[in-house]
Amino acid sequence: MTTTVTEFEVHDIRFPTSEQFDGSDAMNPDPDYSAAYVVIRTGDGAEGHGFCFTIGRGNDIAAAAIEALRPHVVGRPAPTTPTALAALHTELTHDSQLRWLGPEKGVIHMAAGAVVNAAWDLAARGAGLPVWEYLAAMTPEELVSLVDFRYLTDALTREEALALLRAAEPGRAERAERLRAQGYPAYTTSPGWLGYSDEKLVRLAKEAVADGFGQIKLKVGGDIDDDIRRMRLARAAVGPSVRIAVDANQRWEVDDAVRWMTALAPYQPYWIEEPTSPDDILGHAAVRAGQPVKVATGEHAANRVVFKQLLQAEAVDFVQIDAARVSGVNENLAILLLAAKYGVPVCPHAGGVGLCELVQHLAMFDYVAVSGSWDGRVIEYVDHLHEHFTDPAVIVSGRYAAPRAPGFSARMLPESIAAHRYPEGPVWRARRTAQEVTP
Amino acid sequence: MTTTVTEFEVHDIRFPTSEQFDGSDAMNPDPDYSAAYVVIRTGDGAEGHGFCFTIGRGNDIAAAAIEALRPHVVGRPAPTTPTALAALHTELTHDSQLRWLGPEKGVIHMAAGAVVNAAWDLAARGAGLPVWEYLAAMTPEELVSLVDFRYLTDALTREEALALLRAAEPGRAERAERLRAQGYPAYTTSPGWLGYSDEKLVRLAKEAVADGFGQIKLKVGGDIDDDIRRMRLARAAVGPSVRIAVDANQRWEVDDAVRWMTALAPYQPYWIEEPTSPDDILGHAAVRAGQPVKVATGEHAANRVVFKQLLQAEAVDFVQIDAARVSGVNENLAILLLAAKYGVPVCPHAGGVGLCELVQHLAMFDYVAVSGSWDGRVIEYVDHLHEHFTDPAVIVSGRYAAPRAPGFSARMLPESIAAHRYPEGPVWRARRTAQEVTP
Repeated sequence: MTTTVTEFEVHDIRFPTSEQFDGSDAMNPDPDYSAAYVVIRTGDGAEGHGFCFTIGRGNDIAAAAIEALRPHVVGRPAPTTPTALAALHTELTHDSQLRWLGPEKGVIHMAAGAVVNAAWDLAARGAGLPVWEYLAAMTPEELVSLVDFRYLTDALTREEALALLRAAEPGRAERAERLRAQGYPAYTTSPGWLGYSDEKLVRLAKEAVADGFGQIKLKVGGDIDDDIRRMRLARAAVGPSVRIAVDANQRWEVDDAVRWMTALAPYQPYWIEEPTSPDDILGHAAVRAGQPVKVATGEHAANRVVFKQLLQAEAVDFVQIDAARVSGVNENLAILLLAAKYGVPVCPHAGGVGLCELVQHLAMFDYVAVSGSWDGRVIEYVDHLHEHFTDPAVIVSGRYAAPRAPGFSARMLPESIAAHRYPEGPVWRARRTAQEVTP
Repeated sequence: MTTTVTEFEVHDIRFPTSEQFDGSDAMNPDPDYSAAYVVIRTGDGAEGHGFCFTIGRGNDIAAAAIEALRPHVVGRPAPTTPTALAALHTELTHDSQLRWLGPEKGVIHMAAGAVVNAAWDLAARGAGLPVWEYLAAMTPEELVSLVDFRYLTDALTREEALALLRAAEPGRAERAERLRAQGYPAYTTSPGWLGYSDEKLVRLAKEAVADGFGQIKLKVGGDIDDDIRRMRLARAAVGPSVRIAVDANQRWEVDDAVRWMTALAPYQPYWIEEPTSPDDILGHAAVRAGQPVKVATGEHAANRVVFKQLLQAEAVDFVQIDAARVSGVNENLAILLLAAKYGVPVCPHAGGVGLCELVQHLAMFDYVAVSGSWDGRVIEYVDHLHEHFTDPAVIVSGRYAAPRAPGFSARMLPESIAAHRYPEGPVWRARRTAQEVTP
């Protein structure tokens, strides 16, 4: 029996993270980590939760975009099969009027991702499986049916994708078992926010190594002399064998990136992340060719067409998928397949609020059923805001423990939702009152 | 004395164009041409009008995005100088939290464009000049100060832009005079919508030639045999010397585009527009290399970084700016300068609602002060919805007459705004009543 979606709740949820300088980088000095959050609910009480991640102002616009997708969901059968999940993704990304707002980029595309991911949460819970296992239990034919190959076929056809997935079928069970036993490699960005003092950077870098992380990341791009000093301090703190990635958050021109990374190269940065505009495929290729450090990008890449070109142009050494910027699981599956075709490792972006929870499923599925490898792969981890989730990401000795609870791990606690609703939640009411008292 | 912006009105305005199949193409079968419309007003009663163009659903999201920009405008001095117009553009596109929603793409970027264009309307009216003349009266130094060169400097530096503008200074007055006397070349898309019958296509194509147009455009991409038949009919109707451009509206894979255009080539299409994804720079380059017809794109290109790469990759023969998708006059000035640097002609996209009115100013300014040429240049014209504007675009013998009224020509009549507000305007109320009566 198919159940019908009867409710579609949208919440504007914001956390006042800017007060602590958590998450500060060269382009984002004062983020308030936020979620435009959607709950879809069926007549028999099943739920799926999903969200867009934003950094404060504009979260209401993302919520309005999710709201615009309501007619594609409510009153329809709950999407609980690969066929239905494929149809929902197609319908949400091909609404001929809404598509104009992107196309397939920006707020409307992120909103489609929120609803698609909510549907995956619902479907996986219905199957009693975490999303990574739910995906890994599908046949290659079911998996390719989930992908929109439009604009990809000059780089990856359905048949090539099918061949890749079939080639990775042997060993799925063993790799899943290894994941459950060992977890997936992680790195931590917590030491390296640009707003932190040198002392805090050194202390947190040492703590990260003590906690078992084999890789940390520093934000760079504010001032070259500061960055050289911070990189030198970090290298001294963690020793020669721990990887230090650096992240410019789109701060540079191509020439700046080449100059800056040439200056940082003696301290052996593992990769330079987002050296320039996320739209600049040819710029990333020029940065990669112009200096010795490997290039990573993707958290702001708008869609699969941008990822396709980053791979075609040999512009990146690492593909950094984000769980909540593109149109959800379906488009990320396309990106995982593209990366596998080009032999480029996927190292997901995470952090924010709920991004670690979501993206671990995609990396683990990639390991089990697409790339079949975790060599050179690592998922970002930031130790923020996990306490607001019913099934938070768990790090053990620098590795993500494989989720065992059914669903997508990104359901917020009802009391966290209630407290952080913007502008009416008590967390925000209290701040306004404090501002009025202390002018 | 500087006046202050005191009001910021936002309207969701929609026209029920889908009822006539006007504007139908391979990707947009049923557009309701819409404007998320903003009016900024100063304390002394001066006004600036601007808008995002959308095709129906989602216009409310664009209106919400404009609303989010209110704090950057209200209570501030009215931006009526090049310095102030540059500062406003920077502030709107660099809001560190709102930027996350793009960055610089999709709804939030279109909203910035609406507000920026409203400010230009206000400033040009204050100067008593149409926007094209207001721009053409600025010095090269003032013009480059309006441009955000971030992410452009590997292709175009401030100094190169300044040199281009200085080189075009001689003859500005003569070209402006020629524009006023002769108008700017136009082409018409009105005959070629995909939903029109063969008979209507042939009749409208002949009328276009009789009206003095030297170029028409057909929508293609639905069915190859239909397109061959329609192209043959159109060619027979207009004769060998009238240009026929074709427009696939993003419908194809790279291979489809090559196959389809090879089949249409015997009928001498002038260009193929939007053959594939607007994000696919390398795909456009492959289409250009793979078949004999020239390639045009740009109406959905997200920002200057995409245009930069289209030019760097030699992916286009024509740059099709749109007045209302990027962040307004300032970013379009960057794109005009990029096109001039690479020697590629700019042939603006227009149509929709109000786009002809806006973009004519940019093409005319390009002719007077940037490229200095109208050879091979032509502005799209679609004969829809002009009756709703106070200063509608005027076509005389297949050419846009140079606007003489101060401002940006895109102010809607108050009665048109009132009638078409969604969902409460009488045009929409009447439709809902009709649907209730005829179920």
